Amino acid sequence: MDLHILDHRLRVTSISKNGLVNYTYPLIKLIFLRNRTRCKFFSLTETPENYTVVLDEEGFKELQPSEHLQVESSIWLPLNVVSNGNVSSSLQAVGVTKIAKSVIGPLAQQHVSVFMLSTYQTDFILVREKDLSVVISTLEEEFNIYKEVEGESVPVRSQDVSNGLQKNGKEGKRGYRIPPSNSRSALKSFPIGTNFCIFSIQPTVHPVLIPQNQFCVMSLDPDTLPSIATTLIDVLFYSNSPKEDNQSSPNQDLDCIKFFSFSLIDGYISLVMDTEAQRQFPADLLFTSSSGELWRMVRIGGQPLGFDECGIVAQISQPLADGDISAYYISTFSFDHALVPEEDIVSVTDMLQQQRKEAASS
Amino acid sequence: MDLHILDHRLRVTSISKNGLVNYTYPLIKLIFLRNRTRCKFFSLTETPENYTVVLDEEGFKELQPSEHLQVESSIWLPLNVVSNGNVSSSLQAVGVTKIAKSVIGPLAQQHVSVFMLSTYQTDFILVREKDLSVVISTLEEEFNIYKEVEGESVPVRSQDVSNGLQKNGKEGKRGYRIPPSNSRSALKSFPIGTNFCIFSIQPTVHPVLIPQNQFCVMSLDPDTLPSIATTLIDVLFYSNSPKEDNQSSPNQDLDCIKFFSFSLIDGYISLVMDTEAQRQFPADLLFTSSSGELWRMVRIGGQPLGFDECGIVAQISQPLADGDISAYYISTFSFDHALVPEEDIVSVTDMLQQQRKEAASS
Repeated sequence: MDLHILDHRLRVTSISKNGLVNYTYPLIKLIFLRNRTRCKFFSLTETPENYTVVLDEEGFKELQPSEHLQVESSIWLPLNVVSNGNVSSSLQAVGVTKIAKSVIGPLAQQHVSVFMLSTYQTDFILVREKDLSVVISTLEEEFNIYKEVEGESVPVRSQDVSNGLQKNGKEGKRGYRIPPSNSRSALKSFPIGTNFCIFSIQPTVHPVLIPQNQFCVMSLDPDTLPSIATTLIDVLFYSNSPKEDNQSSPNQDLDCIKFFSFSLIDGYISLVMDTEAQRQFPADLLFTSSSGELWRMVRIGGQPLGFDECGIVAQISQPLADGDISAYYISTFSFDHALVPEEDIVSVTDMLQQQRKEAASS
Repeated sequence: MDLHILDHRLRVTSISKNGLVNYTYPLIKLIFLRNRTRCKFFSLTETPENYTVVLDEEGFKELQPSEHLQVESSIWLPLNVVSNGNVSSSLQAVGVTKIAKSVIGPLAQQHVSVFMLSTYQTDFILVREKDLSVVISTLEEEFNIYKEVEGESVPVRSQDVSNGLQKNGKEGKRGYRIPPSNSRSALKSFPIGTNFCIFSIQPTVHPVLIPQNQFCVMSLDPDTLPSIATTLIDVLFYSNSPKEDNQSSPNQDLDCIKFFSFSLIDGYISLVMDTEAQRQFPADLLFTSSSGELWRMVRIGGQPLGFDECGIVAQISQPLADGDISAYYISTFSFDHALVPEEDIVSVTDMLQQQRKEAASS
């Protein structure tokens, strides 16, 4: 299997609900005006707490510092697992179990935090740039590791990294690019990641929320993005709940949760929204997998998790993997969110309840 | 002839070039999201100096005070001249001469300032609300005056006004509405207004600028506004000149002038842009008159004119009227702008030069 370190240096930021007004200008530019920005990696996820914006340094330049903007201090690099030249979501997909054991587990053993961003096309595993040499030395037994440099895939070995990545020549001339894929949600199991470190013998069992909304994971031809611009602007910027504060209030309004994710990464668009939001868009432009399945959310964390909280997602990903249950996984600034097929939500709920009973009685 | 006092209470504001970033959020809402606002009168005009925003009180609520927002202190009411039940731009249009003599002249005699806003559909003559009783008593000899109240046209007489407008019953049940009209630019002469007061025996002759751009005055089916949203957003919010200050610099960059006007008034859209901006829009959605004529601009004022500057536009409107030359007229926060047919620009230029020679030698 191949592991690609993509050619993006990312920042993970959060814009407060009240502060969105101040960031409408750069965000609309980054979403809709590709000719006016060199940003190639942009993701915006609205949750009840805030807006998580993950973007490359070109995009980050557009965000003026303010009290409404929180910035995680690290540079993050997106990794992408590829099987035999195909992206993980292809027919030879890397499932939860496999990536958990081959990537997440080993990285956790080395205290490497990861930030997950699933999209319609693929799953990005973000790691801190400062952890890169550890990542490479940890994973090079299992993977052929490549670093994308200006559209080319350059093989990387840990001894190169310790000497500085830039010393790699451009011997890998395959010009590797990630293809889009419609096949993801037809699969039974997918990679699932976590932003945990190694977890203790008795890990904290965090509360989970299972809101009632049904979600869909969709894509869109970038050329048709202008056609949904006003709807997308409306949903992203103007459909805020009346709640005025920017604090999490996990025990209210969560029969249904506000959750909407848009990403535009290397020219590919991915949208995660609930069916209520979906109804606002023209049915003929957004596409999902042929099965058109719906997903339910498991939100992890009663209080914001931070970026160094340990062992949280492993508690969910391991049973999901054991049950061979597909999942998208989206980390945000405050919480983690797993999306599982609607038909599996009962068994997932049972599993989570059982887990909490055992934690309480131990 | 009829004069209608429309049912809008308007504010005239200016957003600095640097401040636009802070007002993108409310402006996009006012332009594109009709379901989210009760604003019914909105006009945004970009000039090299600033953005002039004229909008009703519902729209004005959306603009948070800041150092970047200037607000003229008055409430302004839009007037509309109608001939025999048709708007002035219909076949029985009120030309420059006629409106100059019947409206502008008499109001100037009474020291009533006006702020003109020509659109594709019609011409709005804005007067200060505090001047309304003077306006009515001045114009009621010439016009049947109606005040629009919740979609109905209520006859108004000056004795009613002195007793308070609200004492008018709703006896005028004609439910008068301004129809859109494509016929405007087919006409030879149009109303032209001015923000002058009565002018002195020896009025100041202000510099004029005649930039090289060719302008077109266009409209758009409001239902197709979403189709041009990203282009309109790009042109309005992101195509700023590199100039960073918000001061007028009339002697530079004015071979061509930055001028773009968008209005959405009672559901009708009007756009004034130069041919360079026009090329960015899909040709099949914006429409102009069948003759598709182009217009040249005369910008009046070397320094910002303010709202009580006197006799400026009369210097232009009177000769235009004498020459039976069509004109649109758009006042902005800092300057006035007349648009005349391209084929008339030579004679207009000659006339203006002659006028300035005479002023210099007198």
